[in-house]
Amino acid sequence: MLDLTGCFDGGAGKPLYEQLYEHLAEQIRRGRLVRGEKLPGKRTLAQQLAVAVNTVDAAYQMLVAEGYLEARPKSGFYVLDYAGGPARPAAPSPEEDPGEDGEGEGEAPAFDLATGAVDTDLFPFRTWGRIQKELLYARPELLSHGHRQGDEDLRRALADYLGAYRGVVCAPGQIVVGAGVEYLLGLVAQLLRGGTAAIENPGYARSRTILENSGVPCRCVDIDEGGLPAAGLEESGANLCYVTPSHHFPTAVTMPAGRRAQLLAWAARAPGRYILEDDYDAEFRFDMRPLPSLQGMAGPDGPVVYLCTFSKSLAPSIRIACMVLPRDLLERYRATFGAYANTVSRFEQQTLRRFLEEGYFARHLSRMRSAYKSRMEALVRALEESFGRGTVRLEGRHNGLHLLLTLEDGPGEREMVAAARREGVVLRGLGQYYMARRELCPDNTVVLGYASLKDRDIPALVQSLRRAWGR
Amino acid sequence: MLDLTGCFDGGAGKPLYEQLYEHLAEQIRRGRLVRGEKLPGKRTLAQQLAVAVNTVDAAYQMLVAEGYLEARPKSGFYVLDYAGGPARPAAPSPEEDPGEDGEGEGEAPAFDLATGAVDTDLFPFRTWGRIQKELLYARPELLSHGHRQGDEDLRRALADYLGAYRGVVCAPGQIVVGAGVEYLLGLVAQLLRGGTAAIENPGYARSRTILENSGVPCRCVDIDEGGLPAAGLEESGANLCYVTPSHHFPTAVTMPAGRRAQLLAWAARAPGRYILEDDYDAEFRFDMRPLPSLQGMAGPDGPVVYLCTFSKSLAPSIRIACMVLPRDLLERYRATFGAYANTVSRFEQQTLRRFLEEGYFARHLSRMRSAYKSRMEALVRALEESFGRGTVRLEGRHNGLHLLLTLEDGPGEREMVAAARREGVVLRGLGQYYMARRELCPDNTVVLGYASLKDRDIPALVQSLRRAWGR
Repeated sequence: MLDLTGCFDGGAGKPLYEQLYEHLAEQIRRGRLVRGEKLPGKRTLAQQLAVAVNTVDAAYQMLVAEGYLEARPKSGFYVLDYAGGPARPAAPSPEEDPGEDGEGEGEAPAFDLATGAVDTDLFPFRTWGRIQKELLYARPELLSHGHRQGDEDLRRALADYLGAYRGVVCAPGQIVVGAGVEYLLGLVAQLLRGGTAAIENPGYARSRTILENSGVPCRCVDIDEGGLPAAGLEESGANLCYVTPSHHFPTAVTMPAGRRAQLLAWAARAPGRYILEDDYDAEFRFDMRPLPSLQGMAGPDGPVVYLCTFSKSLAPSIRIACMVLPRDLLERYRATFGAYANTVSRFEQQTLRRFLEEGYFARHLSRMRSAYKSRMEALVRALEESFGRGTVRLEGRHNGLHLLLTLEDGPGEREMVAAARREGVVLRGLGQYYMARRELCPDNTVVLGYASLKDRDIPALVQSLRRAWGR
Repeated sequence: MLDLTGCFDGGAGKPLYEQLYEHLAEQIRRGRLVRGEKLPGKRTLAQQLAVAVNTVDAAYQMLVAEGYLEARPKSGFYVLDYAGGPARPAAPSPEEDPGEDGEGEGEAPAFDLATGAVDTDLFPFRTWGRIQKELLYARPELLSHGHRQGDEDLRRALADYLGAYRGVVCAPGQIVVGAGVEYLLGLVAQLLRGGTAAIENPGYARSRTILENSGVPCRCVDIDEGGLPAAGLEESGANLCYVTPSHHFPTAVTMPAGRRAQLLAWAARAPGRYILEDDYDAEFRFDMRPLPSLQGMAGPDGPVVYLCTFSKSLAPSIRIACMVLPRDLLERYRATFGAYANTVSRFEQQTLRRFLEEGYFARHLSRMRSAYKSRMEALVRALEESFGRGTVRLEGRHNGLHLLLTLEDGPGEREMVAAARREGVVLRGLGQYYMARRELCPDNTVVLGYASLKDRDIPALVQSLRRAWGR
């Protein structure tokens, strides 16, 4: 039963919605409001408390976001089970469209194994928040426009970081900072319009969409155990080549050095050839130091555009990515886009700069790597124990934030995905990443993104999968 | 004389090119390498140091980017003057290209009257900082990907705000949030590729660049005292029309209601016609409530794309803009760009949402309006007193953040700009905004952006202009 006594008593200085949120959360935690109980409508409660409807709405939304309440479309807000702490909802991944309000999507899955999510608990809230606050007060000039390619000191810090960790060889002037790899890839594609790009099959459909939207048609080249093969690339007739050599998406293949040399040789054989190197997930290599980037092998004027994002190493919602252009493209970039303002908030640019320069980023990465590695190992162990080593095959343990799971004599990928969904587990089949010749895809393989999985949830997840796949 | 002793001594863990860069920079700062001295060729130095040529090249490029060295084509690298530290350029305004590091721009001007700047002193640091901090700690789920069009609650707040203040009629689902009007205009242009756009002459060259880069060729239509004329628009043969009806850039003309109706009638006369309404500077109307947007006149399914930015109402470096799409374009937008992640940091999205919902934005705008209005009035008074009312004519007092100054019997626009520059005042001539038929431009008119001018600096500015223009 909802008790509003003292709701706005203890929170002088706090916004009303926050006081209301805390009051309601407290009542749910104490069991005064029980599972399934319906809360008053927003308007009713607002009248009762003499506050704005927005205030009630904000409080309800926070309670929903934190797992205290459930919003049932066209019905209202209901109290959820309270089990010792607010459950954080899984992050929607970039692969699934959240739709408008996510309404009408049925109940939220118990486990979302989409790729592209991260464990937000690992985010360095305190340091990030402190630096951000310091910058806001100490450097009001950051409110003004900065350099179009991104703040010069951030680009210097990025050049250092990429040089030290990814073997990228460039001057800060060759770096362009932007609000996401997608945005930057779209700009590069506009520069290279008129060309044709070879892309990896299976691969990252969104990159294909961006290239084609920006006027660069794509041709799918089937990968082999070393990633994109040079022969297939040559046959494709393309002059551009989009690759993920550090960690092929989604098969997790790392391109060996010999293959890299072949790609560079391909690019050198004719003028106007470029490799677009998406250095996706290079930060998450668990066994050994990753191979340096193709860009570094090619040198600062080699025919490689290097792209990397901080979506996973920081957070998907902090939109910072960067690219490194060889000097010939840099000149075209400046001639074409010289008038475009940078797309990244300067406060976030400068927070990242200090984060890099003051050593926080390196420490944060190493902490993430170790957390993800032990999670991956625990998941592998639990799956192998539960299904038996001969039955389940797990690939992609060395890098990245997802595994490929193959079930011997499984019911087929579609049924595996559907059955998992019925047990509350969202995942994708490997075949969904084939943009052509899907018949090449092994039929019992699914992709498990484990980044947003909680360690404590692994046993329940594995049980759900066993139920789903009938073992 | 180049001394390489100890070049790779102190930098354990740092990349070699960085150690070399630091060593050389140090020698230049200490005057051991003097102006005009030529550095060894890259290959020679690489051999001498037993490092890769790429390493030397990267170091040289960094030194060039930072103003230590100059690269002379087909000759080599030469030491530049070193004057106490690498010069940091003043924050470049969006109209002037900062070039790489603002080199060769001479000393910083005493007064920069570029348009596009704002008074950062008016920024609501405390509230913005407090909300941002609260969100970082209270809503960790904001680290995950949000809705691709922008967070739903932000779009609801924007729909309310735009409805109340700009007469925009739309559902939150029609709004797309993005990192700047340029980014959003680029997306719309990609949707409308194959069309041709009529643009205002004089006008905003950057919008033309974006449209053309995105595959939409532009035709200049000369404006008259009511802005873009419907007859000229019809004659142009274009099916798209980019306009700034609230406050034409740069002439400050507000398009009257009759003209607006004519433009809408033009759009209605043939299928596939759209008006791209850039509602630039509508917030800064000093005399009366601004006319509602064209979008509102056309209705939620009318042929208008509405664009607006928070660059000036908040800050240029906080990259939030939004657009409202009619439903037919919205469907095409979702089909084409449905997979693109949003480009605005969710923490900034949510800070803006609360800023709007909790009434801070309305108060902040009214505070800015009154500060800018009194600054503009003080500037007008000072100019009229100093030059005499018969000599100087000032237009654009009713809205926006710049004035047009015409000097009767002045020395001509070019000389006015050059003479002002000699006195330390950066401003632009009206002619610089003509993209065609510059002969239509009155010859003694310059554009004074006063947003970042301090009130206390007005007397000194006016004196400088008097000295410059010999009155």
